[in-house]
Amino acid sequence: MGQNRFERDTAVATVDEGRYRANVDPGWAVIAGAAPNGGYLLAMAARAMRDPVPHPDPVTITAHFLAPPQPGEIDIEVEVVRTGRRHSTVQGRMVQDGRETLRAIATFGDLAAADGPTRVDRPRPPLPRFEDCIDATTAGVEAARAGGFQAPPVLERFDHRMSPNMMRWAKGEPLGRGEMGGWLRWADDDGPVDTLGVLVVADCYPPAVFNSGVGNLGWVPTIELTVQVRKRPAPGYLGAWLTTQAITGGYLEEDGAVWDSAGDLVALSRQLALASR
Amino acid sequence: MGQNRFERDTAVATVDEGRYRANVDPGWAVIAGAAPNGGYLLAMAARAMRDPVPHPDPVTITAHFLAPPQPGEIDIEVEVVRTGRRHSTVQGRMVQDGRETLRAIATFGDLAAADGPTRVDRPRPPLPRFEDCIDATTAGVEAARAGGFQAPPVLERFDHRMSPNMMRWAKGEPLGRGEMGGWLRWADDDGPVDTLGVLVVADCYPPAVFNSGVGNLGWVPTIELTVQVRKRPAPGYLGAWLTTQAITGGYLEEDGAVWDSAGDLVALSRQLALASR
Repeated sequence: MGQNRFERDTAVATVDEGRYRANVDPGWAVIAGAAPNGGYLLAMAARAMRDPVPHPDPVTITAHFLAPPQPGEIDIEVEVVRTGRRHSTVQGRMVQDGRETLRAIATFGDLAAADGPTRVDRPRPPLPRFEDCIDATTAGVEAARAGGFQAPPVLERFDHRMSPNMMRWAKGEPLGRGEMGGWLRWADDDGPVDTLGVLVVADCYPPAVFNSGVGNLGWVPTIELTVQVRKRPAPGYLGAWLTTQAITGGYLEEDGAVWDSAGDLVALSRQLALASR
Repeated sequence: MGQNRFERDTAVATVDEGRYRANVDPGWAVIAGAAPNGGYLLAMAARAMRDPVPHPDPVTITAHFLAPPQPGEIDIEVEVVRTGRRHSTVQGRMVQDGRETLRAIATFGDLAAADGPTRVDRPRPPLPRFEDCIDATTAGVEAARAGGFQAPPVLERFDHRMSPNMMRWAKGEPLGRGEMGGWLRWADDDGPVDTLGVLVVADCYPPAVFNSGVGNLGWVPTIELTVQVRKRPAPGYLGAWLTTQAITGGYLEEDGAVWDSAGDLVALSRQLALASR
């Protein structure tokens, strides 16, 4: 079975003990030619960080974004902080041209071996019925073309199914609530998204604040992103729902929840970002 | 104006460039003689971490808890990752007897200088009316004494005002919902809690899962705790509300929100912890 594009574009090669090399692909930019998607960078860092430890799943990972890297070669320096029976804690630093662009810390576990109580009281997000969704990837690419610009490259990495209402912020008609979400899977692979891919899903949409009606539609830089991964997703589309409900002095959170086709919670995410100025 | 106990018990002294020394006080243990409160350790680390940078407020801070330290001397190694005009990113390591016990990363800012849009749609937590609360510190200490054991030392660091219902889990009568919270301020200082104190507030209650009816009432170890601080609190009691709504395979989140007497959101927190086995 070949690799999918996500796997290829986040591949890491060992350079030395604790040092990996990867390639920032321009196909994951949030605006053509501009900064790569934060979740993509997080997943790339996580792939290097889990390499030296026996636990494959990032049960909780946090990155602070220091500077947007350019497409091309990037190094990831990995330090194993602690390895235990059940979890390993690992730090990662992404460095390009001598400049650190991201610092991450994660605890990895083995979600296939997780045992203990289970009870989910958290309400499921108000996802649209799948059959009421449009192919939002194609619609987005066509809308961009009609407008004379290039769609965000990261958009095309996913097969997005969304409510038509969800994207009307782009026409100046925001929902009036800080919400963004829908159903999605990889554009080039209809198999399950793995627990590194979930890190991208948690950050792959336009900012939920764009639907709030607050601020403008410019860049919303992420300061910090944390993702808790709870389950290896079942096959099929994932449902992802992001909300921004507290914009204070230009700071905002974006809270995400990812569910799978089996009806299980897959991940919770939260980021701190700056409203566009 | 003298220091309050929180300030004294989280004081750090410079040992060398990037190296601070502090004292883990037994008065912040979650069980007498056992592990210190995680928020207390986080605040201590944050005090050292902010020392070398010009930004005083932890707008987002994450710690991974590696091992519980003992009371007594502890070192905090601080690395300034990046300092910019608006924010500084700093890493901290707590080391005791050569063993790392906590690794943290934070971005500090200046919340007094925060500008930009403000809109809070997040519902206020269902806090009880203040006048319906009991003095939960005194009640907790007396209940423990009547039961022949010592109350959690950290309990007495706060003047807690809570609904009588909130603490009935201790008598085997949980609410049936993963909720914990109430009103609080420092026991020895009726002035405002500062943005380091908020880090303790976000983690100072018994685990919300104790009110869920799931699992037993044993130790719920925190793997990772992240706090976003949005505002320097106004004077008066803080309202804090913690919820656990997703227990999966023994992993659980605890989400917190802290509000102040001016009706403003002060902090959002989330931790990943393990259900008691």
